[in-house]
Amino acid sequence: MSIITLTTDFGLKDHFVGALKGKLITEHPQAQIIDISHDIDLFNISQASYIINAAYNSFPKGTVHLIGVDSERTLENKHIAMQWNDHYFICADNGILSILTQKIVPQQIVEINIHDRLPEGSSDMDVFVKVACHLAKGGTLSVIGKEISQIKEMSELQATAASDFNSIKGYVVYIDHFGNCVTNISKKFIAEIGKGRPFEVRFGTKNIKNIHRSYSDFKISEKFTLKDYEGERLALFNEADFLEIAIYKSNPSTVGSATSLLGLKFRDTVTIQFK
Amino acid sequence: MSIITLTTDFGLKDHFVGALKGKLITEHPQAQIIDISHDIDLFNISQASYIINAAYNSFPKGTVHLIGVDSERTLENKHIAMQWNDHYFICADNGILSILTQKIVPQQIVEINIHDRLPEGSSDMDVFVKVACHLAKGGTLSVIGKEISQIKEMSELQATAASDFNSIKGYVVYIDHFGNCVTNISKKFIAEIGKGRPFEVRFGTKNIKNIHRSYSDFKISEKFTLKDYEGERLALFNEADFLEIAIYKSNPSTVGSATSLLGLKFRDTVTIQFK
Amino acid sequence: MSIITLTTDFGLKDHFVGALKGKLITEHPQAQIIDISHDIDLFNISQASYIINAAYNSFPKGTVHLIGVDSERTLENKHIAMQWNDHYFICADNGILSILTQKIVPQQIVEINIHDRLPEGSSDMDVFVKVACHLAKGGTLSVIGKEISQIKEMSELQATAASDFNSIKGYVVYIDHFGNCVTNISKKFIAEIGKGRPFEVRFGTKNIKNIHRSYSDFKISEKFTLKDYEGERLALFNEADFLEIAIYKSNPSTVGSATSLLGLKFRDTVTIQFK
Repeated sequence: MSIITLTTDFGLKDHFVGALKGKLITEHPQAQIIDISHDIDLFNISQASYIINAAYNSFPKGTVHLIGVDSERTLENKHIAMQWNDHYFICADNGILSILTQKIVPQQIVEINIHDRLPEGSSDMDVFVKVACHLAKGGTLSVIGKEISQIKEMSELQATAASDFNSIKGYVVYIDHFGNCVTNISKKFIAEIGKGRPFEVRFGTKNIKNIHRSYSDFKISEKFTLKDYEGERLALFNEADFLEIAIYKSNPSTVGSATSLLGLKFRDTVTIQFK
Repeated sequence: MSIITLTTDFGLKDHFVGALKGKLITEHPQAQIIDISHDIDLFNISQASYIINAAYNSFPKGTVHLIGVDSERTLENKHIAMQWNDHYFICADNGILSILTQKIVPQQIVEINIHDRLPEGSSDMDVFVKVACHLAKGGTLSVIGKEISQIKEMSELQATAASDFNSIKGYVVYIDHFGNCVTNISKKFIAEIGKGRPFEVRFGTKNIKNIHRSYSDFKISEKFTLKDYEGERLALFNEADFLEIAIYKSNPSTVGSATSLLGLKFRDTVTIQFK
Repeated sequence: MSIITLTTDFGLKDHFVGALKGKLITEHPQAQIIDISHDIDLFNISQASYIINAAYNSFPKGTVHLIGVDSERTLENKHIAMQWNDHYFICADNGILSILTQKIVPQQIVEINIHDRLPEGSSDMDVFVKVACHLAKGGTLSVIGKEISQIKEMSELQATAASDFNSIKGYVVYIDHFGNCVTNISKKFIAEIGKGRPFEVRFGTKNIKNIHRSYSDFKISEKFTLKDYEGERLALFNEADFLEIAIYKSNPSTVGSATSLLGLKFRDTVTIQFK
């Protein structure tokens, strides 16, 4: 199996994504190319970072993840490739991968150095295509780059514990298609700091006292059906194990969603208060 | 051939669709995964139903159709899998499939019962992935579920004949990308009730006296070219054999479309009046 | 390898694209189907033309390009298939391909004539599917059509040189996802007319004196980092070698883009003034 995933801010209207796939398939006809997203907000490395972290785990070991967000090679942002948790990632060194390296030490990182081996006029994507196909065919990192030990950290707000360890302060880092608000507070961090203590979730003047196990985890009875709970706010850990604040059966374009109904926006504060 | 189609309301911005494909390809590397739509309006089972019914027929027998719309398993909505007309469908039992079972008796329906065989924390999609890959590999329904005889009916408006059989009353059930208005009045139903009588199509204060064979089925001559007919209203049977009301060369974002120009909206009434 | 690309104005919400892929895969299970774009503006053959021209080159020789934009077969627009530069193109004869034939003489063009060999009620896409799969399997054009020598020219604005050869007048033909403005002035045409003379790019009351080699081709120093250039206007030749006017790190939905900040719209004039 030889899988290459794509995460870009190219959008689907232009020819960019089609052309990228054409180049990949020309270079490596056996590759299976799978889109993760092409609708990352333009140049938004924080969002790209969230999406990559949430998606990689659904793919088999050995998958090559090509990230085309803010990917222009500049003096400040080199092109890098990284082997991490048996997956490969190719992107510009702009902080996108630090969400991963904060969790697990990378197996190998290289600064890509094949640029002058490519024809003149080759684009950033031509470089990524070359590297992605090389890795997808089983090639090694050292052939296409020079080993480095550090990558850039994202200059993003991090979830932090209070000095008395009685609360955690985090942020909304992503609003999804359903209008649900994903925070950067992980289940693991709550467990580490809370050590099993009960807690409530606070934001603005509102709070949520329980963590739901699923979107429809409501008590139904002869008196109340699930339909009665539509529009209820809830908090749960999403598939990527981050705390998410949601509205049951939300719809941003009709009845509203967590972001519109609770007034919770990108980068707003969310607090975990232990009891 | 081992085809799995996807119809969801997940949107294309988030990682949901990419992650779903990653899981399918991990479980069944030889599967061919084809998107039908990921832009179903959120939780809109009526729309999902229309899309599935319009699309399935373009795929070969044996295709597995995974439907991720309102798919959370609740006490009210079980997970089901159905073999029908030699195709397989996997979804929650929320009425989505009744558009099919009203036409042809299903070959087999099961309530999926593999949930406790999956790792703890498995999502609804994890269950659907398991079932889809099992079926795509040629597995049987009885291995992954318990046979049932009934599925839920959609509580949707149906096209009905008047008691004197001189008219049919139906509804707009879908507005497509071109702004064309698809009704739930089938060619077959008109033939059954009309028995060959001529008819006209009425909606609001407007009517259309002829059924066109195609969007450009206009009389052209030395006097009139097709260009002269741009903006003309017309009625025709679409590929799924439902009556559709359209505007020749419509464009919702510029000159307008059937829905904007004729004021015909989702759930509006359309009448077939026989003469 | 047997690649079929798709360029349509069908959008991704409806079942049209999924159904098209289902038919292709039914007819030719080994085909690799790659989307170029399904978000062409409705019936916009000029835009389809730009996209096809910009994308085809990223695919290997022998690729079959199916174009579903304004594809209804009428007395005025026949269905055609063309072999050009070792690629195949299938579309209605509405001018879409003249962007290619103006550059290189086609190898063969046929008017498709298999319509009465298909089942009654077959759609335009059914015809294109049949032809695309035939060609992708290595079939010849003469089996599915009758040779013709001419195709329609696009009645579009062309870039032209002034009679004194001191300037070129062109137009904005495409606004991309980043809000960048692509003109129909090619690098080749500038070289032919300019014969190496320096030039500046003019539009409205504005001008750009240098051609950048890339979006981030700015002079950085101890005094200025790339960040200081965000929002700067620039002109460069894009991957398809057309002159493009851009804003460094533009974002149509936040800080603005070339089209919004410079007031440069579809079909606006851009002039190359030689010195």
